[in-house]
Amino acid sequence: MKNTILVVGSVALDSVKTIHGSTDRALGGSAVHFSLSASNFSPVKMVGVVGQDFPAHFSRFLSRRNICTEGLQVEPGRTFHWVGEYDKDFKNATTIATHLNVFQQFRPCLNKDHARCGVLFLANIDPDLQRGVLKQARTSRLVACDTMNYWISLKRRSLLKLLPDVDLLFVNEEEARQLTGEHNLIRAARIISKMGPDAVVIKRGDSGAMLFYGGETLSMPAHPVEKVVDPTGAGDTFAGGFVGYLASAPDWKNFAALRRAMAYGTVMSSFSVEDFSVRRMGRLSKTEMCRRYEKYVSALRVS
Amino acid sequence: MKNTILVVGSVALDSVKTIHGSTDRALGGSAVHFSLSASNFSPVKMVGVVGQDFPAHFSRFLSRRNICTEGLQVEPGRTFHWVGEYDKDFKNATTIATHLNVFQQFRPCLNKDHARCGVLFLANIDPDLQRGVLKQARTSRLVACDTMNYWISLKRRSLLKLLPDVDLLFVNEEEARQLTGEHNLIRAARIISKMGPDAVVIKRGDSGAMLFYGGETLSMPAHPVEKVVDPTGAGDTFAGGFVGYLASAPDWKNFAALRRAMAYGTVMSSFSVEDFSVRRMGRLSKTEMCRRYEKYVSALRVS
Repeated sequence: MKNTILVVGSVALDSVKTIHGSTDRALGGSAVHFSLSASNFSPVKMVGVVGQDFPAHFSRFLSRRNICTEGLQVEPGRTFHWVGEYDKDFKNATTIATHLNVFQQFRPCLNKDHARCGVLFLANIDPDLQRGVLKQARTSRLVACDTMNYWISLKRRSLLKLLPDVDLLFVNEEEARQLTGEHNLIRAARIISKMGPDAVVIKRGDSGAMLFYGGETLSMPAHPVEKVVDPTGAGDTFAGGFVGYLASAPDWKNFAALRRAMAYGTVMSSFSVEDFSVRRMGRLSKTEMCRRYEKYVSALRVS
Repeated sequence: MKNTILVVGSVALDSVKTIHGSTDRALGGSAVHFSLSASNFSPVKMVGVVGQDFPAHFSRFLSRRNICTEGLQVEPGRTFHWVGEYDKDFKNATTIATHLNVFQQFRPCLNKDHARCGVLFLANIDPDLQRGVLKQARTSRLVACDTMNYWISLKRRSLLKLLPDVDLLFVNEEEARQLTGEHNLIRAARIISKMGPDAVVIKRGDSGAMLFYGGETLSMPAHPVEKVVDPTGAGDTFAGGFVGYLASAPDWKNFAALRRAMAYGTVMSSFSVEDFSVRRMGRLSKTEMCRRYEKYVSALRVS
């Protein structure tokens, strides 16, 4: 149980358009992207909600990838549906429609088995719900958390109440700046760490990621991707590789482990953007994963 | 002579304003920033032009830093003077005035000694002048070159004539995209390498740098800087560390050497932005340089 990861977050159907094509109601959501990445390292249990329209083959697909979907409630109504479009540079996503549907009433409820998981990942949902989950969870080796601009501006107080109980926070550049009012990322990360989390990871897209831990900063580059097809879920896939690796490590509170976690997060997210939805992650083999990881870390080894 | 670097470029007086203060007619210019970085690794000879107002103590300062200024012509008139201001995020520099002065008539002329240098760095000047220098230079182990958006749009044909004779080209992200019409940096670098250079380095500011060589891509992160004071010359300082290290290496055409060059370029530029003008580079010790280099490369060593 020590290595088992519980993830609580959104399960969605995404209709996405990019210069390389489009999808209609493809599998998505923060909990899904995270799980498909993390489950390469550790067993994952997912808590979320879907509607009656959620295709059964999506649940079977998740189960085949080492993800327990017993905590996936099916509620009357339709599944959370996001419709979005990316510009040609993949810099900006335009939301065309957000149908929260059954997700609007989501009140995560953990059973005994969920509550005992060693590692908890609070994917990007309302910080009040995240706190509710934390209260239900018993002991955890590691509590990791993600959030977004929406909660930082509209539920700031709730978020600040949550952070002292979080070990590891993921934010992107804009969120780090928004949360702290500080442009410089080192200073922003230091301010965030004073809000509670021992480790702060700032995701920077194709500029890589920055880790702040124990007063030290570590920057790692993105793994260069020649053809980005769909960046949806790249951040959650990064967190999945990061937290997934740490769950499998004997001890996460050291730079050697955190450095490997950064590398795994980077490598996993580089796969996820190569195809629409979860297609690339769905067909990812351990061999491909290890090969790209080795390539990535050996390229950074300056002799 | 094999390791001696000849640099041909601008020598300027810069009046710069940032949120941390300002300078008035401080030492600057591409050849200066490059030389102060490269001279930590290899002897540097500088070819450029200044006016009669150029302070003698600036020339003495350069000489003390292992830079031969015999090729610095003094012409009647005033020195190239740039007046600029950075916004608080250091993303955009606004040019308030560019007084080319004596630099407008600059026609670089190499003596026998200059022409025999093993390594040549063509700093950012008119590509026709860069070609003129190349014709005068005899043999070179390595020809490196920088350019800018202005020449890419206004002297594109001259630049394309120059590139087949260049081994190593430095551009920033926008320049790479402008030169190729390709947004993806890997694809852009591949197109540039087909224009001539064996190695292409794309400088990405606080997102690090990307190297393209032998069909392979290497990304390295920036060294995080907590307080950027003045980013003027950071790109030339990067090139100085890169080319300076390669000039001191027995053979530059391999990934191990190029990787170290990337790391040295990164580390040198991280120093240069910490103070105005050349102040930080002027007081940089070998010990500080080696310490930060070791810190940078060991942080990237994923075990």
